[in-house]
Amino acid sequence: MSTAVSPLAPPDVPEMPVIAGVRLATAAAGIRYKGRTDVLLALLDKGTTVAGVFTKSKCPSAPVEWCRAKLKGGAARALVVNSGNANAFTGKTGKASTALTAQIAAKAVGCSTSDVFLASTGVIGEPLDATKFDGVLAQLAETATPDLWMDAAKAIMTTDTFPKVATATVKLGKAKVTINGMAKGAGMIMPDMATMLSFIFTDAPLSAGVLQSLLKAGVEDTFNALTIDGDTSTSDTLLAFATGAAAANGAPKISRASDPRLKAFTKAFQQILADLSEQVARDGEGARKLVEVVVEGATTKPSARKIAMSIANSPLVKTAIAGEDANWGRVVMAVGKAGEPANRDKLSISFNGIRVAKSGARDPSYNEKEVSEAMKAPRIQIKVALGLGKAKDRVLTCDLTKEYVAINGDYRS
Amino acid sequence: MSTAVSPLAPPDVPEMPVIAGVRLATAAAGIRYKGRTDVLLALLDKGTTVAGVFTKSKCPSAPVEWCRAKLKGGAARALVVNSGNANAFTGKTGKASTALTAQIAAKAVGCSTSDVFLASTGVIGEPLDATKFDGVLAQLAETATPDLWMDAAKAIMTTDTFPKVATATVKLGKAKVTINGMAKGAGMIMPDMATMLSFIFTDAPLSAGVLQSLLKAGVEDTFNALTIDGDTSTSDTLLAFATGAAAANGAPKISRASDPRLKAFTKAFQQILADLSEQVARDGEGARKLVEVVVEGATTKPSARKIAMSIANSPLVKTAIAGEDANWGRVVMAVGKAGEPANRDKLSISFNGIRVAKSGARDPSYNEKEVSEAMKAPRIQIKVALGLGKAKDRVLTCDLTKEYVAINGDYRS
Repeated sequence: MSTAVSPLAPPDVPEMPVIAGVRLATAAAGIRYKGRTDVLLALLDKGTTVAGVFTKSKCPSAPVEWCRAKLKGGAARALVVNSGNANAFTGKTGKASTALTAQIAAKAVGCSTSDVFLASTGVIGEPLDATKFDGVLAQLAETATPDLWMDAAKAIMTTDTFPKVATATVKLGKAKVTINGMAKGAGMIMPDMATMLSFIFTDAPLSAGVLQSLLKAGVEDTFNALTIDGDTSTSDTLLAFATGAAAANGAPKISRASDPRLKAFTKAFQQILADLSEQVARDGEGARKLVEVVVEGATTKPSARKIAMSIANSPLVKTAIAGEDANWGRVVMAVGKAGEPANRDKLSISFNGIRVAKSGARDPSYNEKEVSEAMKAPRIQIKVALGLGKAKDRVLTCDLTKEYVAINGDYRS
Repeated sequence: MSTAVSPLAPPDVPEMPVIAGVRLATAAAGIRYKGRTDVLLALLDKGTTVAGVFTKSKCPSAPVEWCRAKLKGGAARALVVNSGNANAFTGKTGKASTALTAQIAAKAVGCSTSDVFLASTGVIGEPLDATKFDGVLAQLAETATPDLWMDAAKAIMTTDTFPKVATATVKLGKAKVTINGMAKGAGMIMPDMATMLSFIFTDAPLSAGVLQSLLKAGVEDTFNALTIDGDTSTSDTLLAFATGAAAANGAPKISRASDPRLKAFTKAFQQILADLSEQVARDGEGARKLVEVVVEGATTKPSARKIAMSIANSPLVKTAIAGEDANWGRVVMAVGKAGEPANRDKLSISFNGIRVAKSGARDPSYNEKEVSEAMKAPRIQIKVALGLGKAKDRVLTCDLTKEYVAINGDYRS
């Protein structure tokens, strides 16, 4: 299996500023392997609010269930993330492990277990020995520092070929506030590894309700408009934390999502989610091309989304892109199987701006050579115009290569 | 691309008997390539009834639309199948092509165009030049013979590595009747090739309504419980023809699907569909393992089907099978993402009869070596017991190999 960095990795990695009220520390707790950094502790100052969205899996991991329950309090003092073991499909011992981890963290941090949030990624079905956190978390709580963002982003990686971070600084009222985010992909599961995880931190003084609204609206066209292989982890977790420390600099406390002062912040927050989710697509297992599927002229946006997802999840479309083949017949197939309103004779299809089909037939101006040249690009846009209405949508994915099959199928041999 | 016969091909090919009232002929009409057999004509005696089921694609091919319209008459005198061009996504010219093909066939056979049924498989988006059938069909009508079943099954192949036929002889009343079937797979689209096609012929005297009932009930657990890659062709077509010629031997005319005399016939008919659909799975593009997914203990059968399909279409499950890895974590993932009722802590999972997980955790008796040995078999059964209700279902698929990606992605390079 190749461990080379994805050719689609962004060329520039931003400098990650500190976020007042957040301190980070990482360690090797020996969860699965000895000597590998496998635990991240984020310490959050008193007053930090929290929001979260999770996998829609009917078989979620124990940490997902833990976080869902604790979100109700709206307050957070610590985030513990481990790799090496997903604590998923571990039965009753899974629940006991999350409780014990939270107890150890709460003691180390000096907070209630209700204020501890957990995320785990790694092997499924193996009991997670939470006693390994004993001692480790206490030490991390002592040594945590505000400037460890890249280490933190690396600590949560599993099959990722590069760490994924994003940052933005924006005005809230007259004060400067900062948003930092990190994510790990997505493949979805490799040597038994699972999970998309992402964590967003800001010093803006936002109520938990406002943060939850931002997150819910923000994922709609970012993390929820992203697919690698159509498979859904039991552990997908996206948590956002707002320390409120910028209030000391005069940032207004925001307790209504409709507050007009939130406009610039909302835009920046959304951009962070878009940036991180695109990085996840760029690091899809075996990915050699980033694929943007745009569907326009649909009757409704959900209909456009469903058609775009049908195209983005089609193995035949994805293998065609890997083969640099503008195979619009397969795109028609994927439109047709989505089950949404579509009129074959009104369809137009473009690859990277070159229209190959219109009005339900090959475009008369189709030029094989021109199209073949365009398909060599590392980023491919498939645009489908349905010609029925005014709704549109966009989904990100990557191609399906032999490397994907090798990563996910070869490791036993 | 490998052209070797699938290692999963059935070892024995049945002798195909004649069906009174059916004559067959094949030719090379030069639809796409010169000198390649690419057209099949089946002549059907007067009185032949017809039934059909088709792709659910919202962008069906012109021949699918033609057949749907003509089914209303319930009578058939000719079936014309061509490979090389699917006549799909060909706009208005596609409709004109089907009309012209039917005219040429009707003239050759001496029947109404309403009694001509059409199926096309091959490149999408290229106009089908139906004038190539001129002369060819007239000659085929003259030379058609009752014993050409294997040639017919070969004539409709595209990416198939072996011809797919099945036959059964059964009593209807006191008379012997025969059912013959043929099919082509499924990949679904290769060098622009599309389509699953299957044709069933019998000499039993069945009304069109009875035939349609048999077909509709029959596909539910056979062709509709089959997936290669989750992609749906624009052209999938399954037609059944009943010549009624066995009436001359005393077979009773059946005009009600509930007629008790139909019992043995129904069973044999269903068995033919099961046999052919399994052969299609055995010839999935790049397939090295036949995979049977059984879901039991579900709340309803549709729920069991949805979960089984989620497992069967999961790239991560399919690549794990290709890697001979009993990766039950991925099976849990696929159960969870189906969105159907499931309780993680009640799940049990077996591979080829060896239980690897129970009550939401690894089976205590799990033996890695025993399981690894079992996964080497060419046929893998994944059984999931949900522990919720009494409903069960079963779906057939194949593994996802690098060969699949090569077949569908490499041909441009």
